[in-house]
Amino acid sequence: SALKSEILEDPAFLSTTDSHQWVHRMLDYNVPGGKLNRGLSVVDSYKLLKEGKDLSKDEIFLACALGWCIEWLQAYFLVLDDIMDNAHTRRGRPCWFRMEKVGMIAVNDGLLLRNHIPRILKKHFREKPYYVDLLDLFNEVEFQTASGQMIDLITTLEGEKDLSKYTLQVHRQIVQYKTAYYSFYLPVACALLMAGEKLDNHLVVKNVLVEMGTYFQVQDDYLDCFGDPKVIGKIGTDIEDFKCSWLVVQALERANDDQKNLLSDNYGKEDKGCVEKVKKLYHDLDLEGVFAEYESKSYEKLISSIEGHPSEAVQAVLKSFLGKIYKRQK
Amino acid sequence: SALKSEILEDPAFLSTTDSHQWVHRMLDYNVPGGKLNRGLSVVDSYKLLKEGKDLSKDEIFLACALGWCIEWLQAYFLVLDDIMDNAHTRRGRPCWFRMEKVGMIAVNDGLLLRNHIPRILKKHFREKPYYVDLLDLFNEVEFQTASGQMIDLITTLEGEKDLSKYTLQVHRQIVQYKTAYYSFYLPVACALLMAGEKLDNHLVVKNVLVEMGTYFQVQDDYLDCFGDPKVIGKIGTDIEDFKCSWLVVQALERANDDQKNLLSDNYGKEDKGCVEKVKKLYHDLDLEGVFAEYESKSYEKLISSIEGHPSEAVQAVLKSFLGKIYKRQK
Ligand SMILES: [Mg+2]
Ligand SMILES: [Mg+2]
Ligand SMILES: [Mg+2]
Ligand SMILES: [Mg+2]
Ligand SMILES: [Mg+2]
Ligand SMILES: [Mg+2]
Repeated sequence: SALKSEILEDPAFLSTTDSHQWVHRMLDYNVPGGKLNRGLSVVDSYKLLKEGKDLSKDEIFLACALGWCIEWLQAYFLVLDDIMDNAHTRRGRPCWFRMEKVGMIAVNDGLLLRNHIPRILKKHFREKPYYVDLLDLFNEVEFQTASGQMIDLITTLEGEKDLSKYTLQVHRQIVQYKTAYYSFYLPVACALLMAGEKLDNHLVVKNVLVEMGTYFQVQDDYLDCFGDPKVIGKIGTDIEDFKCSWLVVQALERANDDQKNLLSDNYGKEDKGCVEKVKKLYHDLDLEGVFAEYESKSYEKLISSIEGHPSEAVQAVLKSFLGKIYKRQK
Repeated sequence: SALKSEILEDPAFLSTTDSHQWVHRMLDYNVPGGKLNRGLSVVDSYKLLKEGKDLSKDEIFLACALGWCIEWLQAYFLVLDDIMDNAHTRRGRPCWFRMEKVGMIAVNDGLLLRNHIPRILKKHFREKPYYVDLLDLFNEVEFQTASGQMIDLITTLEGEKDLSKYTLQVHRQIVQYKTAYYSFYLPVACALLMAGEKLDNHLVVKNVLVEMGTYFQVQDDYLDCFGDPKVIGKIGTDIEDFKCSWLVVQALERANDDQKNLLSDNYGKEDKGCVEKVKKLYHDLDLEGVFAEYESKSYEKLISSIEGHPSEAVQAVLKSFLGKIYKRQK
């Protein structure tokens, strides 16, 4: 994390002290404080790809720098997502745009966060043979994420509480584009590039990671309703929030007309009675069982794809990811 | 503009029809409709750099594509700027975020516009030797613009009407970063890259164009108050809007204490009497004369920098730019 302050000093040519202070405060508030899962995965994956060879200080530094870029990317998405969702809190504190004097300036702060990434990349990777692939990768993943965000936003348009748009296909698209690419594929892709690989030769890895990311989000949706709030650390509100959750999509697939009407009448309401009715319907439709089935099927499919991969090192990376999330309770 | 629809079809892998329609509508609303000055400059500059050699269809297409990228970049900035400024209209129509069903989704639409640029670049320039320089260039210019926007936003913080922050130095920084880089430097830099030049060898060109962009914005500020509304096509409201305009900055430089108090009391008020008092002060301080002086000094300095340049072709590009804006009335 000496790394962080190193990077913090980079945009120092912002000549006025006011603006330098502003950026400093904005970075401190938004970039650290997450679980750093995504960032750390770059280093972990790179180590596995190098199969136990000792890494130089320089290599570790570069892998960390890429990890931080992913954290920056995440901060950028979250700052803007909170504005679009009109959210109140994030990581237990007020959202950045709700802070005094910030407001809509947060939109531009999001852009600044995003713009720091190519600066970090240029400073530390400009001479690497994989520099251009790194730029392409971040551009591609950012585009996927923004596209997923768009599908999410227009599907769940406020004021138009329309369950007919909530289908398995749409759910899958949102999750895949909005979350899986940047959370699962991006860290491993960064590590592969550092290890000298060409990403075009690793489409299987991409597919496996995107599948894993999808599975991860399905778990998230499941735990929001069926998880233990003490364990997951928050009380789920997907039902109240009219979220396009895997659970509601599965319920709609299985519901008869009466049950569909029940969902229409009760999904997306703050009222506790409504929420209870939805939860009872989920239980009646045995969504716990449906999830258990989905979970083991996904696991099998993922494992067999992974074991079909020619490289032991790549297998190790993918298995390590899968191990971290399979049957997680939080 | 067959080019535009060509590019429009590019993100076609957005599989749902809803989202495809959304992007289509969003692009149609936001990308065309400007004066295309920035976009056309790429083609014009490239022609001059090639000194009358016939351009192939392919070369013209590529120059146009880069021109469109600049228009996309501009659209991205404007969509988000209007949100941050809580503006009402743009180019005589409601701002995009004020349209029905859009609202804060416009934040993500801005990001999509931005993300289309690297897609266009990748599709048409991936194999060019200058591809990586093109990516670096767009990243650098976007960062400058976002930084300028930040200085602008925190200097003119709503609710804190504080004229003491409005100095020549701050005005210069805002203008240079927020406008000059992307409007003046970027088109020429694109043309230079296409012509096989390295941008590191053209720092003089960069400085001249940034100076020209600054001069252009000073004219804009001047015309907002002293221009003929019939000629410029709108009625200026910089005084009412408490803008960090070149005029107010110059007035503050020259005002005595009484005049400073007059400015504090009357600048940034909707009231017509207040506006008139400010305009009278500008006149008393002979800002028309100050501007005329600034204009001729700038012109001389620019011309002598340009004529010191070793390449006739580059001189022609820069003079053509200067000719378009010198002593403009609109
Ligand atoms: Mg959100
Ligand atoms: Mg959201
Ligand atoms: Mg959730
Ligand atoms: Mg504005
Ligand atoms: Mg603005
Ligand atoms: Mg103006």
